[in-house]
Amino acid sequence: MLWARFQHGGRVRFGTVEEDVVQLHEGGMFEGAQPTGERLPVSDIAWLAPCEPSKLIALWNNFYALAAKQGLAIPAEPLYFIKGANSYWAHLQPIRAPASYTGKVLFEGELGVVIGKKCKDVSEADAAQCIFGYTCVNDVTALDVIQRDPSFPQWTRAKSFDTFGVFGPVIATGLDPLGLSVRTIVDGKERQNYPVSDMIFKPAQIVSQISREVTLNPGDVITCGTSLGVGSLKPDCTVEVAIAGIGVLRNEYR
Amino acid sequence: MLWARFQHGGRVRFGTVEEDVVQLHEGGMFEGAQPTGERLPVSDIAWLAPCEPSKLIALWNNFYALAAKQGLAIPAEPLYFIKGANSYWAHLQPIRAPASYTGKVLFEGELGVVIGKKCKDVSEADAAQCIFGYTCVNDVTALDVIQRDPSFPQWTRAKSFDTFGVFGPVIATGLDPLGLSVRTIVDGKERQNYPVSDMIFKPAQIVSQISREVTLNPGDVITCGTSLGVGSLKPDCTVEVAIAGIGVLRNEYR
Repeated sequence: MLWARFQHGGRVRFGTVEEDVVQLHEGGMFEGAQPTGERLPVSDIAWLAPCEPSKLIALWNNFYALAAKQGLAIPAEPLYFIKGANSYWAHLQPIRAPASYTGKVLFEGELGVVIGKKCKDVSEADAAQCIFGYTCVNDVTALDVIQRDPSFPQWTRAKSFDTFGVFGPVIATGLDPLGLSVRTIVDGKERQNYPVSDMIFKPAQIVSQISREVTLNPGDVITCGTSLGVGSLKPDCTVEVAIAGIGVLRNEYR
Repeated sequence: MLWARFQHGGRVRFGTVEEDVVQLHEGGMFEGAQPTGERLPVSDIAWLAPCEPSKLIALWNNFYALAAKQGLAIPAEPLYFIKGANSYWAHLQPIRAPASYTGKVLFEGELGVVIGKKCKDVSEADAAQCIFGYTCVNDVTALDVIQRDPSFPQWTRAKSFDTFGVFGPVIATGLDPLGLSVRTIVDGKERQNYPVSDMIFKPAQIVSQISREVTLNPGDVITCGTSLGVGSLKPDCTVEVAIAGIGVLRNEYR
């Protein structure tokens, strides 16, 4: 199933998408969702980010291919930072070039894990049951901010400008993530295309390990890091993160 | 005024505290709060964190005295990370020693700025108007996590264990922050006592500078960093962060 969240008729609604139609639901997306019987053409909805994470956790250095290319050691544990809630942004909404920063802004296409059940200190097997589904993520990054202060790498700041935490368009359930590939396309040209199977820490392992320290809540998103092919966004380009089985997350950069 | 949030009668309520009495309010704490006429003894309430931040931003290296002692350069901008929402914790609730970590756990007494109005890219003068009030913060830290991976300092992870983001007991309005001192007391012994006036970036300056990149929302908390005297929490100790004009944030460590 593909779950979407959107504005319609002045209200926030959610439902399942099939072809070009949304079937509206009530209740909770993660528990007790019931179809209302209402159906809408997808063209009539204003997309929102598909859920409202209490935290958006983002991994660094989680692909063998990128670690090899950059000469990075394979980490002993998932390494992560948090992207601020102000950065959350939806499909088709323009990503905004910061007014206060003139350096490079990178696209990073990623697979996002969406938590469906509250969990703390769960085994890998139990963690798999706590994953509701998967979404496309563009972990937009103001590259030059990260090392701007020599004493303190600014991961959170570089990644948390307004509009830099893009995810959607939907949450797909029932997928085997290890069979997926993440593609990023800029102005029609493919820039990233890498297999999820190359992850150092796989989704259930990430959820299990992070849950040792941190309670994860329904709607929390863990984005699994990026791999080869990251590049800059240029003014007025269109960037798409495409994962077959989930969909295409499309945004202009202005 | 001192604003508290708490459980009472199975509901989340808020109100103003005077001496040992809470005057219940309805509406929004940050706008349109109205007294209901109900009054409760403080001893009858179960304290909650005084607000629910969409993000808890925490500064590093923001005091001249600590920078001098540690030989740190004075930063050109406020340096910060985010503490996960799972870490938020209230007055009188025990801080939990992590089961998955055996290293040092530090107390860090700090002044927290509570945002009252949505703001983006505001001047320092306007930023002062966006601050609702101030609270006490204990920025609890699993010290050995920070440098555990040599390639990636783990600030967020070290600071975001469940129960490590303690703030309260109240939000105090109408204070001049530059006249305040932050004291931390462990088992009755004063361990920190430093003036807010020694801050490198002062509250309104911090809000203004962070708002260049990040939209701040009502209820967001920015904790202004700590100064001299940080130390370890020992099992079953009681830690208090005390700021005259705000109150005493008290927690056991178990």
